[in-house]
Amino acid sequence: MSRAAQETAHTPRRSKITPERVQEFYTAVLDMLRESGYEALTMEGVAARTRCGKSTLYRQWGSKPELVVAALHGTRRKLLSTIDTGTLAGDLREAARVIATSSRRDTPLMHALGHAALQSPELLCAMREALILPELASIEVMLHRGAERGEIPEDCPAAEFVSVQLMGVMRARPMLEGAFADEEYLTRFVEHSLFPALGLDATTS
Amino acid sequence: MSRAAQETAHTPRRSKITPERVQEFYTAVLDMLRESGYEALTMEGVAARTRCGKSTLYRQWGSKPELVVAALHGTRRKLLSTIDTGTLAGDLREAARVIATSSRRDTPLMHALGHAALQSPELLCAMREALILPELASIEVMLHRGAERGEIPEDCPAAEFVSVQLMGVMRARPMLEGAFADEEYLTRFVEHSLFPALGLDATTS
Repeated sequence: MSRAAQETAHTPRRSKITPERVQEFYTAVLDMLRESGYEALTMEGVAARTRCGKSTLYRQWGSKPELVVAALHGTRRKLLSTIDTGTLAGDLREAARVIATSSRRDTPLMHALGHAALQSPELLCAMREALILPELASIEVMLHRGAERGEIPEDCPAAEFVSVQLMGVMRARPMLEGAFADEEYLTRFVEHSLFPALGLDATTS
Repeated sequence: MSRAAQETAHTPRRSKITPERVQEFYTAVLDMLRESGYEALTMEGVAARTRCGKSTLYRQWGSKPELVVAALHGTRRKLLSTIDTGTLAGDLREAARVIATSSRRDTPLMHALGHAALQSPELLCAMREALILPELASIEVMLHRGAERGEIPEDCPAAEFVSVQLMGVMRARPMLEGAFADEEYLTRFVEHSLFPALGLDATTS
């Protein structure tokens, strides 16, 4: 991502627009991405949805990719970072619950941006930073705490694949089985597949 | 999928077009989907790419969704169905190799169609039938054979997730780690995560 885009993400170029109004723009952009995809998104459409002049959007964010990058950054959430139940098994169960809750909302967004991101390295980078890396880091922290407490070995070879499985299973289930990965499904996955792979006891709380 | 679309998938409406020419159309459609996505695909574009009249396409396939459905059906491959190494561990290792080989080709197509499919039940259904269900069935057969040979229990609770894990990891890794799920990565995943989850010995060939 360019330095300009990074600065845009955190500091709107003009101070006339309130932070609340900026969040309204960001929310509108993400909603429109979920509804119609990246290709169909236009500055005109965002202007119409948010009842502002197109020139305001261009002054503030420069271009459509910059606006999308800013919206992804500006609405960044660390869903998993607050989890700390005291055991790795408890943390992973809680992660399944949190991921399932956000799954309905984020899956359409990820699909909408997936193809566009494959063609735009800047967009892919912004998506990874805004949506994915914070969650990956949180899962790594859980695994690290589990190893420190002796619940899994320090060099547990299955640990490498915990994040990619959680996100992959969440995204793949709708396509494969025609149903979202809800809390019951993800919890069953965590207990029946991740726990034995990591050598954790499913009866641990 | 409508009956008309199903018939279209298997029997072109007019016999003037040779089967070889039909495959050319299908290949062009899938290539264009990988390159630019579903929204950007037009009958005009397919006609230009294949050097035929637009009216020919409309006569033959009726509409863009019908043409895409026909192309997915008409190029259906059963990648995993021929695998039978004699052990479940060997079958899963071979599945990892085959999936990795097809991953570069199919990931862009899946991304391209992912968002469109969420908005079109007919397209989602055609994708599942053409690309996914044959592979799921093949993995179920592998697991069933493994259970019959006593390599895993009949009611192994981790077996439910093997397909969704394999496809999910293949699709999620590029987004999470910025690299395709190649043979070395998927083999490591199978040995270090699936094998212990299923209770298989990684040293088995």
